[in-house]
Amino acid sequence: MTANLTDSQTTRLACEDLDAADPLASFRGRFDLPPGVIYLDGNSLGALPKATAARIQHVVIQEWGVGLIRSWNDAGWFDKPRALGERIAPLIGAGPGEVVIGDSTSVSLFQVAVAAARLRPGRRVIVSERDNFPTDLYMLESVQELLGDASGALERRLIHDDGPSLDEVLDEDVAVVVLTHVNYRTGRMYDMAEVTRKVHEAGALMVWDLCHSVGAVPVDLNGAGADFAIGCTYKYLNGGPGSPSFIWVAERHQSSARPPLTGWHGHARPFEFGVEYAPAAGMTRFRIGTPQLLSLAGLEASLDLWDEVDLAQVRAKSLQLTDLFIALVDSRLAPWGVEIVTPREHAVRGSQVALRVADGYPIMQALIERGVIGDFRGPDLIRFGFTPLYVSHADVWDAVEILEDILATESWRAERFSRRGAVT
Amino acid sequence: MTANLTDSQTTRLACEDLDAADPLASFRGRFDLPPGVIYLDGNSLGALPKATAARIQHVVIQEWGVGLIRSWNDAGWFDKPRALGERIAPLIGAGPGEVVIGDSTSVSLFQVAVAAARLRPGRRVIVSERDNFPTDLYMLESVQELLGDASGALERRLIHDDGPSLDEVLDEDVAVVVLTHVNYRTGRMYDMAEVTRKVHEAGALMVWDLCHSVGAVPVDLNGAGADFAIGCTYKYLNGGPGSPSFIWVAERHQSSARPPLTGWHGHARPFEFGVEYAPAAGMTRFRIGTPQLLSLAGLEASLDLWDEVDLAQVRAKSLQLTDLFIALVDSRLAPWGVEIVTPREHAVRGSQVALRVADGYPIMQALIERGVIGDFRGPDLIRFGFTPLYVSHADVWDAVEILEDILATESWRAERFSRRGAVT
Repeated sequence: MTANLTDSQTTRLACEDLDAADPLASFRGRFDLPPGVIYLDGNSLGALPKATAARIQHVVIQEWGVGLIRSWNDAGWFDKPRALGERIAPLIGAGPGEVVIGDSTSVSLFQVAVAAARLRPGRRVIVSERDNFPTDLYMLESVQELLGDASGALERRLIHDDGPSLDEVLDEDVAVVVLTHVNYRTGRMYDMAEVTRKVHEAGALMVWDLCHSVGAVPVDLNGAGADFAIGCTYKYLNGGPGSPSFIWVAERHQSSARPPLTGWHGHARPFEFGVEYAPAAGMTRFRIGTPQLLSLAGLEASLDLWDEVDLAQVRAKSLQLTDLFIALVDSRLAPWGVEIVTPREHAVRGSQVALRVADGYPIMQALIERGVIGDFRGPDLIRFGFTPLYVSHADVWDAVEILEDILATESWRAERFSRRGAVT
Repeated sequence: MTANLTDSQTTRLACEDLDAADPLASFRGRFDLPPGVIYLDGNSLGALPKATAARIQHVVIQEWGVGLIRSWNDAGWFDKPRALGERIAPLIGAGPGEVVIGDSTSVSLFQVAVAAARLRPGRRVIVSERDNFPTDLYMLESVQELLGDASGALERRLIHDDGPSLDEVLDEDVAVVVLTHVNYRTGRMYDMAEVTRKVHEAGALMVWDLCHSVGAVPVDLNGAGADFAIGCTYKYLNGGPGSPSFIWVAERHQSSARPPLTGWHGHARPFEFGVEYAPAAGMTRFRIGTPQLLSLAGLEASLDLWDEVDLAQVRAKSLQLTDLFIALVDSRLAPWGVEIVTPREHAVRGSQVALRVADGYPIMQALIERGVIGDFRGPDLIRFGFTPLYVSHADVWDAVEILEDILATESWRAERFSRRGAVT
């Protein structure tokens, strides 16, 4: 199945017309992008908002340098993970008091997976999927072992397109299902409400990983009736390299949830310095230790920008960009055996497109040298993220034209493109 | 017991002479300190090195903004936790390949406490102390519960000056002892080698919390034969608010240690994106998820400065400053019932001095208003940290003079000083 180009996709000029009519076009000027670069890797690390550097300088020079220890109160440092969580809430269909900023997404996944499993005592199975982002699977291995008892570790069941399916693994032994909403490699998106419904029917709890969703696709956690979620802020949210994760817990679970990483910032009365742990009310109990304030400053600056964004416009443009990319790949790259892995159906597509192609690694390196930055995911996928705030239709056109040229001239065969760095 | 002032402690001029002869004096110019402030809270949040702001701007504007995703390789982001760990090693008596940067100290304590306890299977007791910094105790509560099995949670034994003592709790059931080297409230310092020896004699493993030691007092982990350690970088190391912790594991334990937070950055081959977790060799297995790069940039800038510091000079000056403070408090503040809680003996004193005084909270608030920043720890301690890189003998003189004036005039009784903020 291939897509035919529509009239608005047949020329670069037509793409420029789409850009001229783009209601999000002005956001591109709010980012610092290096000249000559078409950045299609915002699904891995978002671009730098122009206001971020000044915000971070303020935190460094004024809040830290001048305010010193006083900034824990005066600059609101202690409250920052809660305050920024509240600003992420509208992006994921969460209510007030349901979101807090965490540590890394891996650590936050551990927090919610253990808390969720503890709400289903006696059930000994954790379900995830073989194609999940590996850190989720790795952390769940530990959760299984640590929550095991005399009868051994918990059991893990991994679903996969080749079987078993979710329907096949769900039974009365399943405590928790942990799935990533938009797959990091293929861009395939789950029907959050439908999956959550099935999981609840089996009496289990649903944990969503939103790393590749937030800021990219509509997310309605409360609408879907989900239980727990975590997500990343350095991809589509542009919080900066390694900016901290967020944690969402449905209000109905908050008072009974027992996260395992019981640090003093999650304590009910941290400044009484008591000997016994007592969990704080609400999402505060999911906090652990002292947050990394400089990284939080980057996130805060990016949220200033997101406060202004219409998420419906983001989704509409995201689908326009990925539709355009898919149609151009179909019409121009077929001779080189390029296969589109990402679903063509809108309802199950995230904001990225993966192409399967032999020699994907050197091809991506050649693309990067020409200024088109995507990434490679072994064994044979090249992956492109479409971030509606700063990618234009003309960018998509140009990227495909450069990729076509690289394939047609076989310039990717140059020896320099096959040498691998530490991160591919 | 009170100290008599020596000749070099009797006048401000004598203190200025000490400053003129101070081999560390030039470091004060390497920090941005607000005018009119005597900062005696560097044991809680270190001051801002002058070079830090520019370093962070470089990471934001060049490495993130221009380098974008390429900086994971080109700017060495992926390797940063290892590279910065190597630079902390000389500050704590660690060898190459023994230190890695972690997450928050709470999370890092969880990593090492579980890893340590797993090396002593069958032993069901974790020892700590009632006066430990509470987050350590809170995290250990979780460790106890998670490592429990059919016979229940592990047992916790807390030592205390009022009993039981370490000798009394050590037996063949003890798996791990977790102690903080320098106490956060009193500044009392353990004999690391002696305590470690006792713990090993009982067949247990020793975990040291170095939060109030690193950059303040001599630490020789390998010399003491310790097993695990974690520490903080935002206090005496001046890494910035919430800058990440470090983790040390003796080389002999690294290949058998199994930390519980098994994220992809601790995987042997993270970029193969495999389904099963396989721990990396060495300290890398203690890494978890994506590090917070902006906070790491702050730490990197501060380590540039520490590379130049002679630790013996730091210890000598620290003792000079705390001796001076203690002598001045003895000679001038006795009329108001001020009691020195910190040990007077050098061998067991860290780089801070705690005073017990009724109405400590409003007194500290009055001090802060006068530009002398320390902090209050309930119920009745006011705490002063002496950071040899930027605190002078004259600062100590002036701080005591201002405190004496506040006590003598009872200016702390003003109503505005008794209102509490969130962080005291």
